[in-house]
Amino acid sequence: MAHIDLGVDEQRFPGITGLMRFRPETAGPLNQLAEVLLRTEPHPLSRGERELIAAYVSGLNECAYCRSSHSAFAAAQLDDGMPLVDQVRADPDRAPISGKLRALLRIAAAVQQDGRKVTADLVEAARDAGATDVEIHDTVLIAAAFCMFNRYVDGLGAVAPTAPEAYAAAARRIVSHGYAG
Amino acid sequence: MAHIDLGVDEQRFPGITGLMRFRPETAGPLNQLAEVLLRTEPHPLSRGERELIAAYVSGLNECAYCRSSHSAFAAAQLDDGMPLVDQVRADPDRAPISGKLRALLRIAAAVQQDGRKVTADLVEAARDAGATDVEIHDTVLIAAAFCMFNRYVDGLGAVAPTAPEAYAAAARRIVSHGYAG
Repeated sequence: MAHIDLGVDEQRFPGITGLMRFRPETAGPLNQLAEVLLRTEPHPLSRGERELIAAYVSGLNECAYCRSSHSAFAAAQLDDGMPLVDQVRADPDRAPISGKLRALLRIAAAVQQDGRKVTADLVEAARDAGATDVEIHDTVLIAAAFCMFNRYVDGLGAVAPTAPEAYAAAARRIVSHGYAG
Repeated sequence: MAHIDLGVDEQRFPGITGLMRFRPETAGPLNQLAEVLLRTEPHPLSRGERELIAAYVSGLNECAYCRSSHSAFAAAQLDDGMPLVDQVRADPDRAPISGKLRALLRIAAAVQQDGRKVTADLVEAARDAGATDVEIHDTVLIAAAFCMFNRYVDGLGAVAPTAPEAYAAAARRIVSHGYAG
């Protein structure tokens, strides 16, 4: 059970969904931020790649609900599905992804620790691998935003379902309707 | 200079203001989130108290730009001004604030480290000191949001002015026009 009374059935509205029903005033901008960062097209990073960055950072923060959610959302939008997501989360240095995405994941990992850990060398390596300024900007902001979402969910003790089907169902909703839907 | 080419004069648009000009698509929801969390009225916490939580967390994250900005915004909206902000940032356990605000700052400090550090005891202590569920929710989300804003600004290497007058001028703008203005 969450630390505060959310006024909803937490099994039916787990994780951030219950928090957003408790406080719709903040849910609006939070969903709009997720929609712009993770779903707007056209974008040089695919929706699956952007969700992969979110899943990776949520894993580093050990937020079970966000990690499972965004892993499912990434898997649903990547050709190689959950096996690729699992490989990236376990060992991004060896996972079969582009050099550009690997360099962006290194920037995301630095942001997760502390913004000041993003060095000119990390940025230069991403640029050498083909990343644009928008891709570098959005990677930093996606990683930073999940340092917020992860703390929001865990800081209020929101419930994380253990059944994978809960996250697969959420993935179908996000893929069809997005975050603002 | 920032890690990416923001396309603006960074002395004129330092910190997050240059980042927001580079990427207005994400600036919209970010400003709306700040406006709802830090400025909407009526709210059981004053604008000054909410900015104080933001300044305190930004100090813990050692983000010079955000710490100076939100310290100035808090000081401009608290009767006791910058001396109180400095006392809270230096030693929140002894600063002359209400027991409720002190308990909420303890929750904010836990969130800054990791959402999972927010214990039932910390929440209970805040409730015993008079905090409502909305105040506990908003404290967690303000602290989490500044873990995002701080990483966003420092992760992109945005410039932080050293002159206090830059932050005082920003405070006059925020107090008059808010974040979405």
